[in-house]
Amino acid sequence: MAAIADVIEKDLKKLEKSIDKLITTKIHVIKEIVNYIIKSGGKRVRPILVILSSRLCGYKGEKHIPYAAIIEFIHTATLLHDDVVDNAKTRRGFSTVNTVWGNEPSVLVGDFLYSKSFELMAREGNDTILQVISSATTALSEGEILEIVKTADIGTTEEEYLQIIGNKTAVLFAAACEIGAILGSCARQKRKEMSKFGYNLGMAFQLMDDILDYTSFDNVLGKRVGTDLQEGKITLPLIHVLRSADNEERSYLEKIIGKPRITAKDFARARKIIEKHGGIDYTLATAENYTKSAIGHLKIFPDSKYKESLLGLTNYMLSREK
Amino acid sequence: MAAIADVIEKDLKKLEKSIDKLITTKIHVIKEIVNYIIKSGGKRVRPILVILSSRLCGYKGEKHIPYAAIIEFIHTATLLHDDVVDNAKTRRGFSTVNTVWGNEPSVLVGDFLYSKSFELMAREGNDTILQVISSATTALSEGEILEIVKTADIGTTEEEYLQIIGNKTAVLFAAACEIGAILGSCARQKRKEMSKFGYNLGMAFQLMDDILDYTSFDNVLGKRVGTDLQEGKITLPLIHVLRSADNEERSYLEKIIGKPRITAKDFARARKIIEKHGGIDYTLATAENYTKSAIGHLKIFPDSKYKESLLGLTNYMLSREK
Repeated sequence: MAAIADVIEKDLKKLEKSIDKLITTKIHVIKEIVNYIIKSGGKRVRPILVILSSRLCGYKGEKHIPYAAIIEFIHTATLLHDDVVDNAKTRRGFSTVNTVWGNEPSVLVGDFLYSKSFELMAREGNDTILQVISSATTALSEGEILEIVKTADIGTTEEEYLQIIGNKTAVLFAAACEIGAILGSCARQKRKEMSKFGYNLGMAFQLMDDILDYTSFDNVLGKRVGTDLQEGKITLPLIHVLRSADNEERSYLEKIIGKPRITAKDFARARKIIEKHGGIDYTLATAENYTKSAIGHLKIFPDSKYKESLLGLTNYMLSREK
Repeated sequence: MAAIADVIEKDLKKLEKSIDKLITTKIHVIKEIVNYIIKSGGKRVRPILVILSSRLCGYKGEKHIPYAAIIEFIHTATLLHDDVVDNAKTRRGFSTVNTVWGNEPSVLVGDFLYSKSFELMAREGNDTILQVISSATTALSEGEILEIVKTADIGTTEEEYLQIIGNKTAVLFAAACEIGAILGSCARQKRKEMSKFGYNLGMAFQLMDDILDYTSFDNVLGKRVGTDLQEGKITLPLIHVLRSADNEERSYLEKIIGKPRITAKDFARARKIIEKHGGIDYTLATAENYTKSAIGHLKIFPDSKYKESLLGLTNYMLSREK
């Protein structure tokens, strides 16, 4: 990530300034909450995608900076609402906004960030980008709702899971990259390829997220490991294992998925079953396939330091530890 | 309201069809929840404003129908989030979505409706309307947050209260009317007047809401009377009385505002103190002033059945019982 940041160092500095500048409000607590969550060490993956794809597509202007900020605002709004929905206690090593300020401000400041994003886009006046982002946010909320519907449903198929993560994560990655192509006035084919690159990268990103939730450590991840199992989120490591586990193992997993409180011992045993049946390896292989697809979609673009950075991002997806 | 509905009968039928048609999603539960809340007997005040103002401004096309539906979607999204924030049990005589499906789907389906609204607007491609609505929704969330900040704050001034209800209610009424003026290609002055009409009407609407919360009955209102006091919402009837109550009354009111659970006896006594000091009359007079201002802003428009209906709406605001 450091090498990538070097390539777009100036743009990243402008991004942080833009994030500060664009959140204008008379209500002090909004600024306070937005600053708290937006400065808490997010990886800025989505805005980086906007910046790199714009530059790769030959865009020479400065509009990519506000759009990069807007994409981060929308992402932040979803985090605020997610943490209420999941009743999450920590994120990026800090207490969540809902823990510090309560659920009400989390929901409403999320709404503020959504509205502000659309207000800023309306002011920018690029209807094509507006359509891409608004379709993405609709798909995003559909993905989150489908995830809720499928909570603790041990019959969830791999296909359904891929649909959920496609909507809740990959679509916004795709939109981030498509913005770059639109700003760069790419022809339809390149715009499509850029979007598909983002989509596949987003899939790999979420698959790795779902792996780390089983394999990482609280202090590295900045939140509790094992949260997915605790919340009844049926992710690919578990789906894969439910297909090949023996009867005893399967009924054990089914039993703890329905539990309101999973103990550390339960989680350790679940993790062992998942590792034994290759749930992590299978998910990693799936993530690798998505990064390979992502790389394929970059072929059409000429070599440049921006393309190299995007290729670097695909590697980072598979190696990241948090 | 029946007379107004007669004037735009055909448009109202189209509105209901449009509301059905525009909510496209593959996720069954979204459709189910949206139908549940959107068909639960809302008064459709905001879409009626879009329709009447469009027609008053000479608009002959059909775009006012989707915009009327969009305004209702945005309003519905705020209701879904409000009911989570307020932990409300009933609305319009039915159990709230958060009571039936839980907080999570309420938050996420609200997000879906917001996103869908912006997606539909992006497709319509009218940037001026998009700017008006997105500024309105930003102001709306600011108003709701300010309301939370001021919860149980007995020092809340009349000015602060008017700012809160201006943002959380009147701004969307103003936007609804301004859409009509924009569709009707009104010149700047008429567009301004139309917006101000909506703003003042919205203020009267919210003031009456805050009166009814003290004076109505559960079965008439479709939700619990006394909810504002219970939730620590300091509305104008209370603000006025806190200025003129004697020491004993004031400390009684201050005591119950901080209480986690207000009894029927407490509420009855609070209501008596409010009535004794003219809190209801004062708020009603304030609402009347706003409707008078609203009427003033219609002067610039030629007489027509649509203008008559808008004038009728100002009367309805003051006489409505739910």
